[in-house]
Amino acid sequence: MFKLLKTSGNARRGVLKTAHGEVQTPFFMTIGTVGAIKGLLPEEIRELGGEVILANTYHLHLRPGEDVVAKAGGLHRFMHWDGAILTDSGGYQVFSLSKIRKLKADGVEFQSHLDGKKIFLTPEKAIEIQTKLGSDIMMCLDECAPYPAERKYVEKSIELTTEWAKRCKKFHDSLVGNRKSEIVNRKSLLFGIAQGGIYPDLREKSAKDLVKIGFDGYAVGGLAVGEPKKLMFETLDLTVPLLPKGKPRYLMGVGTPEDILDAVERGIDMFDCVLPTRNARHGYLFTSKGVVRIKNEQYKEDFSPLDPNCHCYVCRHSTKAYLRHLYVANEVLALRLNTLHNVAFYQDLMKRIRESIDGGQFDEFKKDFLTKYGE
Amino acid sequence: MFKLLKTSGNARRGVLKTAHGEVQTPFFMTIGTVGAIKGLLPEEIRELGGEVILANTYHLHLRPGEDVVAKAGGLHRFMHWDGAILTDSGGYQVFSLSKIRKLKADGVEFQSHLDGKKIFLTPEKAIEIQTKLGSDIMMCLDECAPYPAERKYVEKSIELTTEWAKRCKKFHDSLVGNRKSEIVNRKSLLFGIAQGGIYPDLREKSAKDLVKIGFDGYAVGGLAVGEPKKLMFETLDLTVPLLPKGKPRYLMGVGTPEDILDAVERGIDMFDCVLPTRNARHGYLFTSKGVVRIKNEQYKEDFSPLDPNCHCYVCRHSTKAYLRHLYVANEVLALRLNTLHNVAFYQDLMKRIRESIDGGQFDEFKKDFLTKYGE
Repeated sequence: MFKLLKTSGNARRGVLKTAHGEVQTPFFMTIGTVGAIKGLLPEEIRELGGEVILANTYHLHLRPGEDVVAKAGGLHRFMHWDGAILTDSGGYQVFSLSKIRKLKADGVEFQSHLDGKKIFLTPEKAIEIQTKLGSDIMMCLDECAPYPAERKYVEKSIELTTEWAKRCKKFHDSLVGNRKSEIVNRKSLLFGIAQGGIYPDLREKSAKDLVKIGFDGYAVGGLAVGEPKKLMFETLDLTVPLLPKGKPRYLMGVGTPEDILDAVERGIDMFDCVLPTRNARHGYLFTSKGVVRIKNEQYKEDFSPLDPNCHCYVCRHSTKAYLRHLYVANEVLALRLNTLHNVAFYQDLMKRIRESIDGGQFDEFKKDFLTKYGE
Repeated sequence: MFKLLKTSGNARRGVLKTAHGEVQTPFFMTIGTVGAIKGLLPEEIRELGGEVILANTYHLHLRPGEDVVAKAGGLHRFMHWDGAILTDSGGYQVFSLSKIRKLKADGVEFQSHLDGKKIFLTPEKAIEIQTKLGSDIMMCLDECAPYPAERKYVEKSIELTTEWAKRCKKFHDSLVGNRKSEIVNRKSLLFGIAQGGIYPDLREKSAKDLVKIGFDGYAVGGLAVGEPKKLMFETLDLTVPLLPKGKPRYLMGVGTPEDILDAVERGIDMFDCVLPTRNARHGYLFTSKGVVRIKNEQYKEDFSPLDPNCHCYVCRHSTKAYLRHLYVANEVLALRLNTLHNVAFYQDLMKRIRESIDGGQFDEFKKDFLTKYGE
């Protein structure tokens, strides 16, 4: 499923085979929470170089419901995206969005943040929902411990995560060969998620436990949840070597361009983050010379492109003055153009990262990028 | 500037020559209030068949200001639209958006609805702003009497409108040959606006006064402001014959597909209205079988296209269930897709109207369209 093509230091170039095509690693997944990228068409993601998007199981379960999506022929058809889709397990949103939740050995009970309806999510249910959505890359249900968390809490948490991972694997295996529905029948990949907070020995234990179960790929979870950057990278330094070389490694919810470079350097292959899309909505635009806050007065009569080094539609056809005008006037086109640019920036970064590893020059690329980015 | 090509009954096919190309009449202008169509790119308007868009002088004067737009090289360059732009005079918004206004012989004083700043708009100023914006079709400053309005009020109002129209014409003439700036130098068209409320003799007087001054085209103003439809069309029946056959006729702010057909039938050549874009935002989608309210529960599992007779992106690639899901989830992509479809519907209607006049079969087309639309 995963083929490692080349390394440059610890940075890796590979290809991951999914039911919706081969995708080049390292890659960044744009977030399409409810089955839609904020303001963009799937075709635009593709054109910008995106091969995988991420959709949220929690949101799609609540609305429109996985059964509606399944009746539509799966999420790919529903949203008209022919690339690969990774779905999370829903677990993270249960912890971050639902006010009331009860953690049980069997699963987690929570209230919908939309209508307060009680829902019980088990490892099997998480896989079932993802299956009905037609996911190409599924994630095991896990518990993401908050930061900071007591050692005792994290100890129990990784036990639960391992237990749930086993059940997810078992249930996922049972679907293979189940030919009841076209969607269920697809060859989806299943990823385990290593947790452990910031406790090195618990991180080690969780990673080893997961690897023992055996997954198509491994995620490092529970990072970028408020801990200092230093701790995040120390945890990565510790965890990555414990993961099998022949499987893809996914750092969940990360991050800034700098974070991505630092993580690729450590051997991470997959990323997702709300930053490019969310920041676009707040007028924070990524450029090769750092972040531009487009609402600033200084851009009122700045008729230069946002980023002369970017080849996206926005940078070819709009000026900073126009983007500022749209943002200040609260025009919906501002969301679209800002998002388009930020997604383009991230996809271009990943493309250049891949090219630099291909050329065995990742370190040079990273240094060069960060020098300009910090100007 | 205007060439009448063919008639079918009173319905007219023509070509209007502007500084940004020849445009086919009858046409419908999508609204781009602040220099942006709600959520759409100019290229998309063009692709859907739009040749002229409307931008609002009042809004652009307040934000970002005509001087910024002029420095950007005019509105066409600012927003990256190479088709024609019609700008209104700002007068209508002064009356509809500004709470405090003082009507004087010389112009109208009003407060910005954004920051309360006092602004004095004169006929000359209205033309100056439109000139700086780089408008292809400018409108004279007029007073749009409300409905209902006392006869005495309307009597005075049309006098003022005529007086202002003369001053607009004089000032616009003075700009011809003024080679100070590239923008000022463009060959813009100037339209007069006939008013008169619902008083037939005042309508007649206003139209005749305007025609006497001599404009590149004539708008029928002050309709679709709350009066019964019957009165609107009676007023059109009375006014249109008073306008010169060799000039384009513009019914401002109208309207529904039915209204447009009824007005084309009476010899109107130009339309603008917020309906397709505003209704899109509220989930009212135009189809060949009437309006679909996409949020309705009945579409939850309706996997058929919104309008099988429509060839737009949305109808080719999305289902009603997906559109409903996006709308209910308050996704920004809903605005984009809904707007794209509604604009496509309106532009397609205009194209079919033009074709039917070309073929001398406007009446048949109208009847056929309305039969299906009312199903």
